[in-house]
Amino acid sequence: MGRFQPFHLGHLDLATRILDECDEVIIAITSSQFNYLEKDPFTAGERIEMIHNSLKEASLDLSRCFVVSIENQFNVATWASYLKSALPHFDKVFSGNNYVSMILADSGIEVMEPMFLDRTLYNATKIRSMIVSGENWKDSVPNAVYELLTKINAKNRLTVISKSDTNPTKH
Amino acid sequence: MGRFQPFHLGHLDLATRILDECDEVIIAITSSQFNYLEKDPFTAGERIEMIHNSLKEASLDLSRCFVVSIENQFNVATWASYLKSALPHFDKVFSGNNYVSMILADSGIEVMEPMFLDRTLYNATKIRSMIVSGENWKDSVPNAVYELLTKINAKNRLTVISKSDTNPTKH
Amino acid sequence: MGRFQPFHLGHLDLATRILDECDEVIIAITSSQFNYLEKDPFTAGERIEMIHNSLKEASLDLSRCFVVSIENQFNVATWASYLKSALPHFDKVFSGNNYVSMILADSGIEVMEPMFLDRTLYNATKIRSMIVSGENWKDSVPNAVYELLTKINAKNRLTVISKSDTNPTKH
Amino acid sequence: MGRFQPFHLGHLDLATRILDECDEVIIAITSSQFNYLEKDPFTAGERIEMIHNSLKEASLDLSRCFVVSIENQFNVATWASYLKSALPHFDKVFSGNNYVSMILADSGIEVMEPMFLDRTLYNATKIRSMIVSGENWKDSVPNAVYELLTKINAKNRLTVISKSDTNPTKH
Amino acid sequence: MGRFQPFHLGHLDLATRILDECDEVIIAITSSQFNYLEKDPFTAGERIEMIHNSLKEASLDLSRCFVVSIENQFNVATWASYLKSALPHFDKVFSGNNYVSMILADSGIEVMEPMFLDRTLYNATKIRSMIVSGENWKDSVPNAVYELLTKINAKNRLTVISKSDTNPTKH
Amino acid sequence: MGRFQPFHLGHLDLATRILDECDEVIIAITSSQFNYLEKDPFTAGERIEMIHNSLKEASLDLSRCFVVSIENQFNVATWASYLKSALPHFDKVFSGNNYVSMILADSGIEVMEPMFLDRTLYNATKIRSMIVSGENWKDSVPNAVYELLTKINAKNRLTVISKSDTNPTKH
Repeated sequence: MGRFQPFHLGHLDLATRILDECDEVIIAITSSQFNYLEKDPFTAGERIEMIHNSLKEASLDLSRCFVVSIENQFNVATWASYLKSALPHFDKVFSGNNYVSMILADSGIEVMEPMFLDRTLYNATKIRSMIVSGENWKDSVPNAVYELLTKINAKNRLTVISKSDTNPTKH
Repeated sequence: MGRFQPFHLGHLDLATRILDECDEVIIAITSSQFNYLEKDPFTAGERIEMIHNSLKEASLDLSRCFVVSIENQFNVATWASYLKSALPHFDKVFSGNNYVSMILADSGIEVMEPMFLDRTLYNATKIRSMIVSGENWKDSVPNAVYELLTKINAKNRLTVISKSDTNPTKH
Repeated sequence: MGRFQPFHLGHLDLATRILDECDEVIIAITSSQFNYLEKDPFTAGERIEMIHNSLKEASLDLSRCFVVSIENQFNVATWASYLKSALPHFDKVFSGNNYVSMILADSGIEVMEPMFLDRTLYNATKIRSMIVSGENWKDSVPNAVYELLTKINAKNRLTVISKSDTNPTKH
Repeated sequence: MGRFQPFHLGHLDLATRILDECDEVIIAITSSQFNYLEKDPFTAGERIEMIHNSLKEASLDLSRCFVVSIENQFNVATWASYLKSALPHFDKVFSGNNYVSMILADSGIEVMEPMFLDRTLYNATKIRSMIVSGENWKDSVPNAVYELLTKINAKNRLTVISKSDTNPTKH
Repeated sequence: MGRFQPFHLGHLDLATRILDECDEVIIAITSSQFNYLEKDPFTAGERIEMIHNSLKEASLDLSRCFVVSIENQFNVATWASYLKSALPHFDKVFSGNNYVSMILADSGIEVMEPMFLDRTLYNATKIRSMIVSGENWKDSVPNAVYELLTKINAKNRLTVISKSDTNPTKH
Repeated sequence: MGRFQPFHLGHLDLATRILDECDEVIIAITSSQFNYLEKDPFTAGERIEMIHNSLKEASLDLSRCFVVSIENQFNVATWASYLKSALPHFDKVFSGNNYVSMILADSGIEVMEPMFLDRTLYNATKIRSMIVSGENWKDSVPNAVYELLTKINAKNRLTVISKSDTNPTKH
């Protein structure tokens, strides 16, 4: 589970290692109803496309992968059951976020601590700020992500958002 | 696009033929926010699972297939742009529903008329009523769908729903 | 108040007579969040445009007219206060709908019974069905409405909707 | 659980018998977001008041009773977890509605079949129609309910609703 | 009215004094749709339970007390009418929050300034931070609240939330 | 487009100049669902009234002006199509907000940079703070706005909001 803004090599590495251990992996894109916002600049569709293309490029077995978008729930206590309704059947959840772990644990779902690659290197917030500042971010993401973000002119989108204090979801 | 309640051989045949013509196919599951209702008994997660497993069983190239759940929009005029935000980039839409075609056409999206297999044979409403009445519906759906629906005891769910006049979404 | 699907000569006559009695008139377009539906085929924007143009064509004093779109409220008991927040200050409401009168009266708002022109002649439901069947409906609406509906090809929209059983707002 | 439109002697009898068996009873008012509608004419507040006053009048031990309003959930699969978040801790649910039982059972909640008093005698739909037609309904409800419904002029509200085809929640 | 995160001795004292003056008291739990958040960690159900048990423990006359959960309204101008629909009939509101007083006053509802016990001692924000830091908070709340919060392991919940920057309701 | 909290002389000047160039102008009031909040203190109805009265006072040709309230959309990517459904037909949008321009440009709508009068002089945030502090703000707004804000006692409303940390839309 993650927002995948954007999907980076740390995410891809984790998916690969989960597939080594498990029959199937579901990559659940959270906050899918949000886009064009500072923390969620890319649409659900763009995120599905970048993840799918990255898995394909890495030659993962796509018949064992699901890429699914899910929405945040305002009533947090219903989130776990929403998850069960929105996703194919799953046995465990990998999450390094203690908040997520607590909510799922309170709902009786097994939560595993994922092993992430170097998080200072592979970090979506950092990658977004590198895109804006013009630093080299190409090596932090799968090539498929780089191509998609270039095609949609992510640099312009992120720059405009970062300079603006307009946020239609806030009050 | 469809509700896929359930996914049947007519749907699978169409997906197969679209893949013959196009680079990629996106199977968009509409009404994904609804479940346990007469016309939408199965959850989005169950539908993703039955479609994915059917494509796999039919040996379609999953690296060219997307299975994505989307929600109905109450403001119909925003539906086409919601679709663009929720799905990977697409060039055309296959829909035999004139209402859907009109809305998309009014938004400048190209709509193609799909060629369906015999619709009296492969029809989700009919399959649901066959499940309830105990008729043979096994031959109308991919084997993967038959297995999933058996595992979740679809017969019981559909029977209870069909005998009930409770619908939490209605007033 | 009304849905104005479409605005017809009965509505225009009523607005004219209210202006004879009152300082100002507010024409409140209800169900403004709905469109492309059997009872609500036209968008809020289209309805604002047809009403504004009709008032102008009839040489009413537009400095004394407001045309405002409002949404239905699911919690009916909050509707009167929503109305007060969405509309310029008003003293009374003209409504021939007993249900509307009851809700407003329970909230302490004065409700007046409007005098409508011949309702069998000027009736939005009837006009919509005349548009579909190709009967002469031109004389039932202001010329400005006739022109707008022709420009947006209302006949096609209404025909497709009437032949379809798709309604994205229903379950 | 029930809509309690209105709360009648069958409901009161059931609450009394549950208190004989259990430590505490939670009376959960469903569809609490709806009011002034054909099937849900009374507000959540009015229903809380009529139930509370009835329990008091019947000298039930109010320190062992909870009266709680809950809303319908459009995503039915999340309903059981919403229930857990909205209600004090509970061990079992009494419901004679097979649809409700199925949803709760699928969520691992124990459901008991309640024993109702004569349902042809004590039936909320029937009581509402008796109120409209002027038949004697006083003996079907606790006296506290009779007084409240008289005070708010339920007869007028139900009559106006029954004669109207306006339903702000429908499309 | 209050969020009651958690219900403390200051709240209990106020309820007791209102019952001295008034026939009945309604304790309205605001923000009831929120939980597992920094300012709203406990569910509506947990809050109903802690309040009910505290009133019972203090031997207040429960036949004169209502404990009702209500939701925040995004359109603030409709909040007073929502309140009227969600609560049993009331004559006045006790609120020490000027913002709340203004909104209710603009809607014609009488607002009384409550007399609170020492607010530096009895303060929900402070109690939550004492729970996290392990200070003695037991004497600030009714014993029934202490027991419930211990049973649900409030310390762990509050600690995880306070260390996390995840908030599913924010953007 | 703007929130118009409140409508000031800079806005009026812009409307006047757009009318010099264009056939018609639509003044679209954004965030119309919000009110009694720090950035959005006035209701949609109050804003419609102040704008309408200002245009009238300035003797603009009201038959060429539309004043329309629109709501923020949480899924930003659907905002442009929502705009098209909520407004009369338009050809271009005047917006000095780069964020707004980007979203509309991505949807194929032509965006023009408006020429504003001295923004340090005519600035809604500054006017709101002048109202609270008691400075002279009368010369920054049309007389009609001054009168309305005085009538509704805007000073009190803004003062209470500015001193309060209650925001029912936030968490």
